[in-house]
This record gives sequence, C-alpha cells and structure tokens, in this order.
Amino acid sequence: MTPKLARFIDSGVVATPAILVDLDRVAANFAALRAALPDAAIYYAVKANPAAPVLDRLVGLGSRFDAASIEEIRACLAAGAAPAALSFGNTVKKRSAIAEAFARGVDLFAFDSDEELAKIAAAAPGAKVYCRLAVSQDGADWPLSRKFGTTGAHARDLLLAARDLGLVAHGVSFHVGSQQTGVGAYQTAIGQAAMVFSDLRARGIDLRLLNLGGGFPTRYREDIPPIAAFGDAIMASVRAAFGNDLPDLLIEPGRAMVGDAGVAVSEVVLACNRREDDDRRWVYLDIGRFGGLAETEGEAIRYAISAPGVGGDETPAVLAGPSCDGVDVMYRETPYRLPAALKSGDRVLIHDTGAYVTSYASQGFNGFLPPQEHYL
Amino acid sequence: MTPKLARFIDSGVVATPAILVDLDRVAANFAALRAALPDAAIYYAVKANPAAPVLDRLVGLGSRFDAASIEEIRACLAAGAAPAALSFGNTVKKRSAIAEAFARGVDLFAFDSDEELAKIAAAAPGAKVYCRLAVSQDGADWPLSRKFGTTGAHARDLLLAARDLGLVAHGVSFHVGSQQTGVGAYQTAIGQAAMVFSDLRARGIDLRLLNLGGGFPTRYREDIPPIAAFGDAIMASVRAAFGNDLPDLLIEPGRAMVGDAGVAVSEVVLACNRREDDDRRWVYLDIGRFGGLAETEGEAIRYAISAPGVGGDETPAVLAGPSCDGVDVMYRETPYRLPAALKSGDRVLIHDTGAYVTSYASQGFNGFLPPQEHYL
Repeated sequence: MTPKLARFIDSGVVATPAILVDLDRVAANFAALRAALPDAAIYYAVKANPAAPVLDRLVGLGSRFDAASIEEIRACLAAGAAPAALSFGNTVKKRSAIAEAFARGVDLFAFDSDEELAKIAAAAPGAKVYCRLAVSQDGADWPLSRKFGTTGAHARDLLLAARDLGLVAHGVSFHVGSQQTGVGAYQTAIGQAAMVFSDLRARGIDLRLLNLGGGFPTRYREDIPPIAAFGDAIMASVRAAFGNDLPDLLIEPGRAMVGDAGVAVSEVVLACNRREDDDRRWVYLDIGRFGGLAETEGEAIRYAISAPGVGGDETPAVLAGPSCDGVDVMYRETPYRLPAALKSGDRVLIHDTGAYVTSYASQGFNGFLPPQEHYL
Repeated sequence: MTPKLARFIDSGVVATPAILVDLDRVAANFAALRAALPDAAIYYAVKANPAAPVLDRLVGLGSRFDAASIEEIRACLAAGAAPAALSFGNTVKKRSAIAEAFARGVDLFAFDSDEELAKIAAAAPGAKVYCRLAVSQDGADWPLSRKFGTTGAHARDLLLAARDLGLVAHGVSFHVGSQQTGVGAYQTAIGQAAMVFSDLRARGIDLRLLNLGGGFPTRYREDIPPIAAFGDAIMASVRAAFGNDLPDLLIEPGRAMVGDAGVAVSEVVLACNRREDDDRRWVYLDIGRFGGLAETEGEAIRYAISAPGVGGDETPAVLAGPSCDGVDVMYRETPYRLPAALKSGDRVLIHDTGAYVTSYASQGFNGFLPPQEHYL
C-alpha cells in the first residue's frame, strides 16, 4: 500500500467496502514496464481496471490499449486515446462490435478461428489482423485454459486466408497465462511464433507484429521476479528466434500496471469459531467473492491481508464473504493468520487489489452493492 | 419455457443477453408450494431474484420474505411487505443493518454465533431470534459448506444466552443445501432440531419456530421429485419428531419459486473447433459465468440449453462466455450437444434461469453489461 493510500484511509472518510487506487503508482508501473521492455509498445489491458481515471492517466503517459469489448473501446476513446492506439484483442467478438470499432478508426483485430476471420473481413475490410497461438501456460496462477488460441500450422493457414480475404496479415500473438511468475515461459512461445513468421515469409507474407500478450505478475504474498528480468528474458528469446530482423513488439500488461496500485478497505461483519475441534477463526468480511474478489476462486490469487490497529496474538483464520452463499469463501485451505482479538466492526485491508476486482463485482448479489471506488 | 415467454421472444424485440421471467409462473409456483406444505409459512428467499416485479407479485399473493441484507429488507418494504412478514435470515449481519431493520419494524433475526447474538441484543432489544443448525447437505447440487450453522449443543447454549440477553429465544433453522433433490434430506435435520426443542423445554424455554430453510429444487436437465413429495416427507418427519405439539413451520424457497419462471436469451458470438483431435464445437455465448451464470462454477448447475430455429445434426459442444477470462467456461465436462450448423448471430436459450442469475451478474467484466431483465 502506498503512503498516499494509507493517508486517505487514516483520514477516516472511507465507507466500506471500497477499492482505493493510487494513480501515481500506475504511472510508476508504466515507467517500469517501458524501461524493462523499451522496444515493445505498451497496450494496457483495460479489463484489469477500466475506470476512467486509470485510462485518463495512461492516455496522458502515451499508453496504448488492449480492449476486450466495444464498451472498452468506447471507454478508451472517451478518455482521449487515438483509434490507432487501440487493439481489439478479444478473439471472440460480435460482428456489430467489429463494425463499430472499425467505423471509429480501430484497425487492429485479434482472431484465432475461421469464423472470426470471416466476420472481421466482412465488418472491417482491409484491417490488420493477428492470429493468437495456444501456448503452454505452466507457471501461471490464473491460466487461460484452452479457450483461446490455435496451433502454428492452423495460424499459418488462417493468416494466408486473411490475405486472400483482403485483410492485412499482420502478426501473431500468444498469452502465457495471467500472474505468470516464470520468466522462462516466453522462450518456447516466442520460438513457436517465429516459426509462423518464417513459414509465411516463404509464402510471400511479411508479418510485422509479435504480440507478447499479458500475464506479467504483481506481487501478492510471495515475491516475484522484477519486471526487468522478464524484459531481459523476453528480449534474449526474441533475438535468438528472430536474429537481427526484429518484429514490432507489443505487450498487454494489466495486472502489472494496476494490481499493486490498489487496496481494498473492508469491515469485519462477524468473527467466530465454527467448531470446537477447529482452532481457526472464521472471519466474515463485507467484501467477498461476489463483491469483487472473484480471483480467490480455487484460492488461485492469494492476497496479502492485514488488520492495522488490531494487536495481540494471531490465530489461523478462514476468510469468507458476507453473502448467504456457501461458495462465498475466499480462503479455507491457504494458511492465513489474523489477530485473535479481531471482531465485527474492525477494518481489514486486502492489498494489491487494483486489478481484476472492481469489474468482477456483482451488481448486487444478496443485495450487496459493488465496492465504492476512489482514484487518488 | 412458458408460452408467454416464447411469444415474447418470437416478437423479436429482445436484445441479448436478456433474462425473461414469467410472473404467472412465479404465482403458480407459490400456489404449488402452499399446497405442498399448507402448514408452513412461505418466506421467499429474495436473493434468488430480488427484482421489484417479483416482490410486488409475491406481496400481492401474501408471501413473506427471507432477506439476506438490509438492501433486501428495504426492497421488500418498498414492494409493500409488512415488516412483520420479514425474516432477516443471514447469520452474518452488520450491527448497523440489524439496527435499521429493527427500527423499520423487523422483529425476526437469524444467528449462529455468540458475537452475532450480542450484536442483535444490542441493536434489536427484545427481538425474536432463531439459531441455525449445521446439518448434512448430501444430495444438494449447490451445498452451503461449513460457512453457516452450529451444533445442537451449542445452539441450546446460545438460545439460553439469548433469553438472558433479553431476546425471545424463538426457534431453530437449518438448510439442507440448495438444489437439494433428495426428499429424505430433511429427516435427520428435523430430528436434530426437535432435540434442541426438548432440551430447551427442560430449561424452561418453549421454542415456537422450526425454520426448514430453502433448497427446494427446480427442474434443470434432470427430473426432480414433485414439490408435493417434499411436503409429504417433511410433514411425516415433523410429526414423527414433534408428535401432536407441532411447531410453527417456515420455509424459504427461492429457486423453486422463480427458477423455472425464467429463460436467458443469448446470442452466439463465435462457434468453432479448437483442436483437430477434438470433435467438440466451442460455442461462445454473449452471456457467461460473469454475466450471471455463476452457478455453472464447477458445472454444478446444468441448465437445459436449446437453439430453436437451427436444425440439422448435433455435435458435442463446449459452452463458454464472451470474456477474455479463461475460467469463463460454463460446460466443458458435462456432455452437451448443439446443432453443428450453429454459427455467430444465432440465438441460444438457457432455460430455467429465473433464480440466481441476474443478481450474480458482474457490473461490467470485460466491459460487458449485465443482461437486460424483462418481467412479463
């Protein structure tokens, strides 16, 4: 948590549940990403936190944007982003969304299937397209499964078809999985991408774009490699695979841009022991899995949690949300410890919640409204 | 799907994604529940679908209401429910929520821990309280885990403490788990509850209320026992456990009241094959796990799905949502079949989605807005 956020909490004006985001930390993360990968264009993954103040700040810094939907494209344009600074990165798009984006000047579209390619050719004639490869996501805490991406051989055929449909076969992309903590995850993927480049060069198509995707981690409870280590590993792999003929590079950081810029301020609703043979204290917060902490599903993302101002001994704790839903439990298996004196009304902070929290929040499950958002 | 909903869809005015609910079916379900358990007061579990038209209709039918939050209490009162017709059924409540409910005339509160009891005693002096027991939830498709409820011995101590705190020790409750398809699930639970009644009678406290909870199923893909079978099994167990001195009975149906009154209208965004060695077609809809279909987590609730108007052979299908999130996949393991000719732009209906859909929907994950709601 940054000093600015700590001061705002201390001021006592925050009603819970709330998400606070320090925009200066977002700017610092943007600078660190640029320094780590100076050869790559930065396309912020809007889905991580689509709030207007975040987009405004990033537009001012010269960021570009990766959008998952026409609603995100509209939000970026409203924040002042140039259409040429946008990539429509979801490989699954309605034809109406493609057409509206194209009409507004967006010219770069992702795809990974024949049907999507046909939609883009019809709704955005002549646009630049890149094909998403399916690559290994070992080492990611929030992998993206087989929902997206295709094989190198199919990508080659699809990009040839793109040219025949009058589109610009512009490049390839991949995604190594979100909260990817292994710097080596990129090496194989970059090699696969380079093979598509050389296959297509032999067919008369010069691809230009290598989209390295997102997945760069933020620090939760465990240390992660510095972003510079990812930059070094990626550039070494790119040079090994492409030699001196480097493609245009693009990255789509989301979590690494805003995750550690945020903190959730929550209130304990109830703290009690549930069974005599279990020394763990059940702590029910006024934010839960359906109030934004969706990435605690399967306890995949393990946030640092603190209770400032509550002292004394700690006991093992189970963390649950406020709803009547039995699956609304954040941590039951992961060991957490909280003060034994913690009681209803006390404040609990959930750290590094700037990414993938606010937008997941339900519109009103069990009547609970989404957390209030403060951008400072 | 009811004929009224089918006509509304055929009229062609529905933009997707949308949830349509037939209020006449809600009324029919209310009548069926009343007929199946004429001795039980019906407290609709608002969390299943808190829309004002549903609450209005149920107020008109004489229903009572089980609320999970102060927001739900306010919604019921706004719909015209009498405060005496409300139960604040969440065992985890902010003290401020208890106080507001009590000030508005609500007089019946659930609890299952010392701390909650102390909050109720302080914020709702003299109110009626009932203690929730933890019981087996075998047979439920959406169990409620160990998040709620306590042992019979602890419930006895807590109800004695309630009396000493000036509250009315009014009864006990339990919940056999949501979408509970076993009619025998109640027998053991009712026996446990009866033991608390007799323990407390020996201590000079006459409990009055046996809250049988919710969990009554709705029909998804598999047949379920008729609601009358649950009524018969429950009343047989109550008579066996309580003899002629029957307690006041209360049920909290949610899913059984509104589930089969609703249908989701969705559009195919993309249909494609993902791997050459997999004959399953990936069908991406414009509604997914974060657009309301949250109960497909772990493929727990398996909705019936159809594509009216699309004919021809069927193939195995994987069903996924529209977002860039890899976990936004509804069914990958459960066998589903959809027409091989299904393509982007076609309509797909997801049946029996009147309960536990709209309120789960995220406020805008990936930019996608919650489904539109139509109450007919």
